[in-house]
Amino acid sequence: MKALRFAQGNLRIEDVARPTAVDEALVRVTLSGICNTDLEIVRGYAGFEGTIGHEFVGVVEAAPGAPELIGKRVVGEINAGCGKCELCLSRDPRHCAQRTVLGIVARDGAHAEYLQLPTANLLPVPHQVTDEQAVFAEPLAAAYGITEQVSIQRETRIAVIGDGKLGLLCAMSLAITSENVTLVGKHTEKIAIAEREGIGGVNLADLDPRVHRSFDVVVEASGSESGFAMALDLVKPRGTIVLKSTFHGTPTWAAARVVVDEITIVGSRCGRFAPALEILAGGKIPVEKLIHDTFPLTDGVAAMERAAEAGTLKILLDPAK
Amino acid sequence: MKALRFAQGNLRIEDVARPTAVDEALVRVTLSGICNTDLEIVRGYAGFEGTIGHEFVGVVEAAPGAPELIGKRVVGEINAGCGKCELCLSRDPRHCAQRTVLGIVARDGAHAEYLQLPTANLLPVPHQVTDEQAVFAEPLAAAYGITEQVSIQRETRIAVIGDGKLGLLCAMSLAITSENVTLVGKHTEKIAIAEREGIGGVNLADLDPRVHRSFDVVVEASGSESGFAMALDLVKPRGTIVLKSTFHGTPTWAAARVVVDEITIVGSRCGRFAPALEILAGGKIPVEKLIHDTFPLTDGVAAMERAAEAGTLKILLDPAK
Repeated sequence: MKALRFAQGNLRIEDVARPTAVDEALVRVTLSGICNTDLEIVRGYAGFEGTIGHEFVGVVEAAPGAPELIGKRVVGEINAGCGKCELCLSRDPRHCAQRTVLGIVARDGAHAEYLQLPTANLLPVPHQVTDEQAVFAEPLAAAYGITEQVSIQRETRIAVIGDGKLGLLCAMSLAITSENVTLVGKHTEKIAIAEREGIGGVNLADLDPRVHRSFDVVVEASGSESGFAMALDLVKPRGTIVLKSTFHGTPTWAAARVVVDEITIVGSRCGRFAPALEILAGGKIPVEKLIHDTFPLTDGVAAMERAAEAGTLKILLDPAK
Repeated sequence: MKALRFAQGNLRIEDVARPTAVDEALVRVTLSGICNTDLEIVRGYAGFEGTIGHEFVGVVEAAPGAPELIGKRVVGEINAGCGKCELCLSRDPRHCAQRTVLGIVARDGAHAEYLQLPTANLLPVPHQVTDEQAVFAEPLAAAYGITEQVSIQRETRIAVIGDGKLGLLCAMSLAITSENVTLVGKHTEKIAIAEREGIGGVNLADLDPRVHRSFDVVVEASGSESGFAMALDLVKPRGTIVLKSTFHGTPTWAAARVVVDEITIVGSRCGRFAPALEILAGGKIPVEKLIHDTFPLTDGVAAMERAAEAGTLKILLDPAK
């Protein structure tokens, strides 16, 4: 089968054997999505080698212990735990120390014709959700996961910094609960996507200093040192900053301000898929508007180059195209 | 009256007029304590000029609206709010944007024969608490304030990094609730103070890497970049790091780890005085064991030099000595 693989500093499409583990489900991938994490892996972050990709929708071809899944459209949680530790036994392997992670840690990923995952990781896709929507289940789960960690109410005043894919998904996810979400970005056309959903949009250059220290919750989704500095400016004393993007290297931070203003910083990575599928089934977020292009899997290298261009939102790969 | 003042880069004892505001209480200081913040102000941090000092015990000589306080021994909350904003109206001026802070922000402090504060800031000292204990009310409130912000249970596994005054007070405060507190320090004799109170002590050099990623809560009380890096090593995924010390400048941090391990960081500055006085009245923490010396107020400059020496714990100033 074809797979988009990164090894020894090179990214290329290779012909490799289909996955063969008999104790895991086999999924034929119908669409996969390129995430910034894929771009970071190719830049050498995380030290991963193998098939990249962790956002997918596909059809089950084998499912040990769950024959009812065969032929079903599924998405899949990307963390596969050891199955034995305290976290895994509580059915949440997201922080298992021995975990593998689809296309990120010691497990071949989704930019391929087939992938495998533990059967328990798979969730059937509701019929009303298209493949183009379902492929957003993973990043949407990550965005909506903020609500698992931070109390969000109707009146909670929220700023999201960063108008990339993740920032837009965070803003739209949080706007399901809060009536008071502002997206702070740099790109008029991306901010407009949020504004069409009734979310307040502000261009960074036009930000009124009077909103400093006024937000209950600020989501940092730009992954930049300056984004975190702005989060510190926007959050009110005793407020919460959600760190949603991974940062390269070791940025600096004004730690003294965190202490003096008694700010809480919450690191946030993965969310649960079930609520994300409910949001998609309810048509609550038009994720498909974030798609900028779909490439054949065989053009995966070109697709990654396109995804890396400034201003690009979601690029999908289609193994059947 | 005599006062220890910092202005234009110079620290010295000066003769100044007694405080005169008729709408605030006048307190004759009987003991004041030198805090690391005092040392940082003298190094130019915070841009404060005036009488330094914010830890004190004294006797009330005037108290507008509260004649019953006159002649009483008191300690005092150091933040004085505007009295009009939402925070002040909810009787918690600790984050009022217009606040003054005793000896730290726009208000003369406690290393003086007299000080003034709003009457509402003063709390009578229970009779069984000595002056040498009561002068710890402010730093003890700050240490115990962690329990206002983070859920601490009997079984919560806690590490405190830093064996200075603040680290020791944090370890001893948290050990009132948790049976599982470890103090990580560099000075055998300081760690021993905690150990005598039944707290586990570990010298940094002897720290077993197997305890990495095992603590529910890690309190950073060293104020150093390396202390925060160690906190990230010690805290378990989804655990909490409490930032208790202010940091100079803009240190670096491994922000990506905060995201990947979904760690919560809680900035923590001031606590409430009432619980601190209860702890002192109950004899639950032998704060007086942290006193290394008491200087006459008139030797305040020498006392500050002594306090700045490595390994020094609490230095007190006595205006009557």
